[in-house]
Parts: sequence; C-alpha cells; structure tokens
Amino acid sequence: MSRTIWWQDDHPALLDQTLLPFEEVVLHCRTTEELAEAITSLRVRGAPAIGVAAAFGVAHSAFLAAETSEDVATFQEVVRTACMRLAATRPTAVNLFWALERMRAKLRVLEATAPAAAAPALLAEARAISEEDAAACRRIGELGAALIEDGMRVLTHCNAGALATAGIGTATAPIFVAHELGRPIHVYVDETRPLLQGARLTAWEMDRAGVPFTLIADNMAASLMRRGKIDAVFVGADRIAANGDVANKIGTFGVALAAQAHGVPFYVAAPTSTIDLATPTGDTIPIEERKPEEVRSAHGHRLVPDHFPVYNPAFDVTPATYVTAIITERGIVRAPYGEALAGLCLGNRQKGSV
Amino acid sequence: MSRTIWWQDDHPALLDQTLLPFEEVVLHCRTTEELAEAITSLRVRGAPAIGVAAAFGVAHSAFLAAETSEDVATFQEVVRTACMRLAATRPTAVNLFWALERMRAKLRVLEATAPAAAAPALLAEARAISEEDAAACRRIGELGAALIEDGMRVLTHCNAGALATAGIGTATAPIFVAHELGRPIHVYVDETRPLLQGARLTAWEMDRAGVPFTLIADNMAASLMRRGKIDAVFVGADRIAANGDVANKIGTFGVALAAQAHGVPFYVAAPTSTIDLATPTGDTIPIEERKPEEVRSAHGHRLVPDHFPVYNPAFDVTPATYVTAIITERGIVRAPYGEALAGLCLGNRQKGSV
Repeated sequence: MSRTIWWQDDHPALLDQTLLPFEEVVLHCRTTEELAEAITSLRVRGAPAIGVAAAFGVAHSAFLAAETSEDVATFQEVVRTACMRLAATRPTAVNLFWALERMRAKLRVLEATAPAAAAPALLAEARAISEEDAAACRRIGELGAALIEDGMRVLTHCNAGALATAGIGTATAPIFVAHELGRPIHVYVDETRPLLQGARLTAWEMDRAGVPFTLIADNMAASLMRRGKIDAVFVGADRIAANGDVANKIGTFGVALAAQAHGVPFYVAAPTSTIDLATPTGDTIPIEERKPEEVRSAHGHRLVPDHFPVYNPAFDVTPATYVTAIITERGIVRAPYGEALAGLCLGNRQKGSV
Repeated sequence: MSRTIWWQDDHPALLDQTLLPFEEVVLHCRTTEELAEAITSLRVRGAPAIGVAAAFGVAHSAFLAAETSEDVATFQEVVRTACMRLAATRPTAVNLFWALERMRAKLRVLEATAPAAAAPALLAEARAISEEDAAACRRIGELGAALIEDGMRVLTHCNAGALATAGIGTATAPIFVAHELGRPIHVYVDETRPLLQGARLTAWEMDRAGVPFTLIADNMAASLMRRGKIDAVFVGADRIAANGDVANKIGTFGVALAAQAHGVPFYVAAPTSTIDLATPTGDTIPIEERKPEEVRSAHGHRLVPDHFPVYNPAFDVTPATYVTAIITERGIVRAPYGEALAGLCLGNRQKGSV
C-alpha cells in the first residue's frame, strides 16, 4: 500500500494526490498554512486521511510553538489557533473535526505542561490517531471481506482507498483483504468526475495491488447493473448522520439509487470516527461547493470556456433507506441505523477500542 | 442555430464537432470514405444528423459515379456500395439505416435512369430527408414546449440539439421554442462523459441561444433531483424499440432511474425515423462499444495510463417503463407504447407527412 500522510523527522509529509497517477511527489509541510492548503486543494483527501493530516498538523504547530516560546499560555493559544485554521479547510468530512477535537482534548489535558513536553505528547496523540485508523481499515477489511463471494464484481465510486486513509482504505479494504486471501474479484471503478479520484487514484491502487479492475465513466454504472454485471457496491463516507444517511463524494447517491433498483447490495465502509451523532439526518450535513473550474476542466485540461456557468457540489447525501449495511471497525450494522450507530459510538466512548 | 451538415456546391460539408467548443472548423467531404470517417469519429453525430449525413454521402457518391461512367449498372453498383460503406460506420442509431434505406429505395426507382439524371434525383431525396428532419424538429419543439411551464428547470443529457439534427434539435427543440416564446426556463446540462457532448455541444448551443443554463458533471443529476431542483428531463434517442424501450447516449438510463425515483417527468424527443418497429425490445438493440482511449482521456487530454482497462459502451437502454412520454413530430405518445408507436409509424407510411 502507498503511504498517504505520515510524520517525517519533524514535520508532516504527504503524497500529493493531485499529481497522481503520472507523478508521485511527496509534499513536505513546514507550516500549518501549507498543510491547510494541501487539504483544501485535495493534495491529501479522503475523510480519514484528512483527519490524520490535521492531527499531524496540530502536532507540528505544537513543535513550532515550543521552539519559539516556553510560555504555556502562548503555546496553548498557538496550537488552538492551528486547530481553528485546519478546521476551516473543508466542511463536510466529520473525521476532520473529530480528529481536531481529539487533539484539542489532549491539549486541554496538557494545559499545565511545558511546551517542550506537550509537543511530543501531541505528536503521540496524532500518531495514535493514524495507527488507530490503520487498524480500523484492516478490521473493516476483515469484516467486509466476508460479504464478498468468490468471483464477485464490485463497483466503487471515488477513492475510499489506501490513499484516503492511513491504512488499506475503507471501501477498498474488503476488496484488498479478499484479494490477499486469493479470492477472485473484479472491481469496476467509477472515474468520479470532476476530479477523477476513481480514475486517477482508485484505479492506480488496483493496478499496483494487482486487483483486476475496469475503469468506467460514472454514467455507465446504472446500465452495468441493469445488465447484471455488478454484484455489490462498496463506497466510503465523509459523514454518517445519526439516522444512517451518508454524505459521500458527489455521484454516490446515483449509484445507490441504481443499486437499489436492481437489488444490488450497497455497502458503506467507514471507521466509527465518520459517524456524527450530533447530525440528526443527512439534510443538515453541510455540503461543500467547490470551484467551477473543476467541472470546466479535467486534470488541469480546459474543456469549455471560462464563462460557462457551473454547479459543483463535492458531495451528496444518500438516505439510509438505500444503504444495505454500514461496515465499521466495530462491526457491520444494518437498518434501523439510529440505534445501531448510537450503540457503536457509545461502545467507543465507554469501552475504548475492542 | 448552427448548421451541422449541409450540401455545399457539389459535396457534403459539416461542422467538425470534435473541435467544439473552441474551434469552429468546416469539414468538406470529397469522398465517401471521408464522410464515413467523419461519422465514425463523431465529427458529425446525433441520430438524425448522421441519417442526413449518410443521405448526402450517398448523393455525393452518385455524382462521383456519374462523372466517371454513363453505365447504369455500374452507377447502381457504386452507389449501393457507398450505402454499404456508410451503414458500417455506427451500429446503434437507426436513423442511419432508415435514411440509407430511403436512399436505396430511391435508387431502385432510378434503376433505369441514366446516371446524369439519377444523381440529382438522389440529391433531391437527400435534401428532402434534411428538410423533413428540420420540419420534424420544429414540430417536436412546438408539441414539446407545451410540456414546459414557466420557470421550469429542465435537465438534458448528451446533445440532442441543433448539432445533432438538421433543425433545432430534438430534446432541445421544446427548450428553444419555449425560449423563443419568451418563457423563462433554466437548463441543467449533463457534461456527458466520456466525449463531453453535453459540455462541449449542448452548453455551447445554450450559450449561443442565450438560454440560461448550468453545466454539471453527470453524477450530480440524481442529487439535484432529490433536492427538488429539476422539474423535467428531456433527452433524445438513437433508437426506439417497438415496445418503447429507448437506446440513447450512455448515462441516459441513470438519469431516467433518478427521474422516476423522484417523480420527475422523463421525456424522450425524437423524430419517427428513430422508431424501429423491427426491433421488438431494447434488449436486441446493438450497443456500440468505442475505444478505451475515450475514457482514458478528456477532449484529447490523457487522464490515466494507457494500460488501465476500460469499458466504454456508447449507449444504454432505458426501459419503456421509465419513459413518461415520447415526443415525435406526429404527436406525443404515452404508455402503452407498443400500439401508440405502431400507430405513428403506420400513419407515416400510409399518409406521408401530415
């Protein structure tokens, strides 16, 4: 698997995903602003990965603050400001806010600790977030692989792969585990316009892992299902509301509609950090709108004149009624989701990782 | 409106649509092979337009044959061969075969006519096909405009516009007529991957005509419908089976699914030449598969490595149960389609144009 985001020596480093699949360039973030820009411009993306990136960003801001001042109050203030800056990068993926809240909680625990000791403690917390995410991916893969039968043809949308996490991905985890177990599987990869995360990232991951795959345009999925060529859908999530509604990359809802119409199971794979019990339904999830240039171009190549009006929502909401099951590191849950998701998160809080 | 395909002096000329929206280049076809290549490579595309193009191509082959030989048998053979060559360009749109059959029927009528007289007669037939298509578009527009209420937001997929016909388009005809009548309307244009006929052609037409529009990626349509932002869908057709199943640009079926799920009317606009009573259902319509490079690139720009496997069907089939109504130049028909479509075509044969 490719590394997406990691701590290198004394700073966060990440694989610049905007340059894939043709160039593999590592970006070294020396300031909070650089990391924030990397998140906003999708150099690092994927709900779990941006949570991990933000956590490393907070740790990095702590080391920078500790270098310049030994004053605890100043240190706390600088790190809190970094948290606020990183929270302002993208609105939809709740993992970002979840990771930042966890870093802030750690910061509060350290409110009487000298900066020189607090910074390493914050880095340890960020590392823990990263390692727990990798473990969650692996567990999602093990649980989800049980849903994949030999010879299945599965469809995935966008990239909820290794590149979107600190591990083997969420939607891709069951695929990779099934493949590791030697079970035949074929993956249809939606290219995922406008930014082509499917074509550029998921297909690249499948290619590197040796998983047989076929790249398609997004608008081909429904027809493939009608013709009986898709046995299951696996997607990730940027936020799961308390009732089981799922915000994910734009186009996910259309795939879910087609899946339900054809009796194809539609699975959402995500760590419990993606579940947001504070958001009652999908209707209240903020949906990021991105620059029109993204639709007017394809991987930097201009397709239409600059004055063509464009609408460019980055996500959509799939109502819970379309979701066959949600695969988390704590188990697979099915409708009714309200109780099941609350139970998972309560378990999280009461028992820690199991 | 832009001219798409026309007879210029002594040969067919066409606007090379592969170069839109940035370049407007006219291609002059001096041989049957050049015209066949133009159809295959989508320099001229759209079911009605390729019918007209093929008809002009047959007329052109007749003039070339008449120049080189006065022998009637040779002339007939050369023109029949041109028909066969043009029929081998694209398999799905039935208007191509319909137009070629009409030219062959005319050729049979002329089996005792000297080449010098037969060639102009074939050109007259091709001109008639073109003019009848323009009239059909206008009538579809008038009939279809009655389905558009003030302020409606309509979605269209691919390009069934002026560029796809010899007139004001099929799916776009009701839009243009409503706009001419001064009725407010807003058009959401699916970009239509992989070849971006929506972004490059339909958006260009709306822009030139001054019709307010918004360009979206294909995968955004379902979400727009869920949020109540689309009041009706208008699409064209490449072939309508006897039972009302509709073959149209890949992605149409997904739009139809989403429309039905949200109670949005889904209208198919096409001349009666698109109806193929010899094809009982959509399942027997041949679906063209095109080069993988189309999906691996966007308007000539490479997106992914050449070895990524791709599936690239150019069309899909929307079952009749998803179609609210079919708008033809002879009237608007609704389910059950079998009888209604047969009635339209019977009317065609018995009464000629009305």
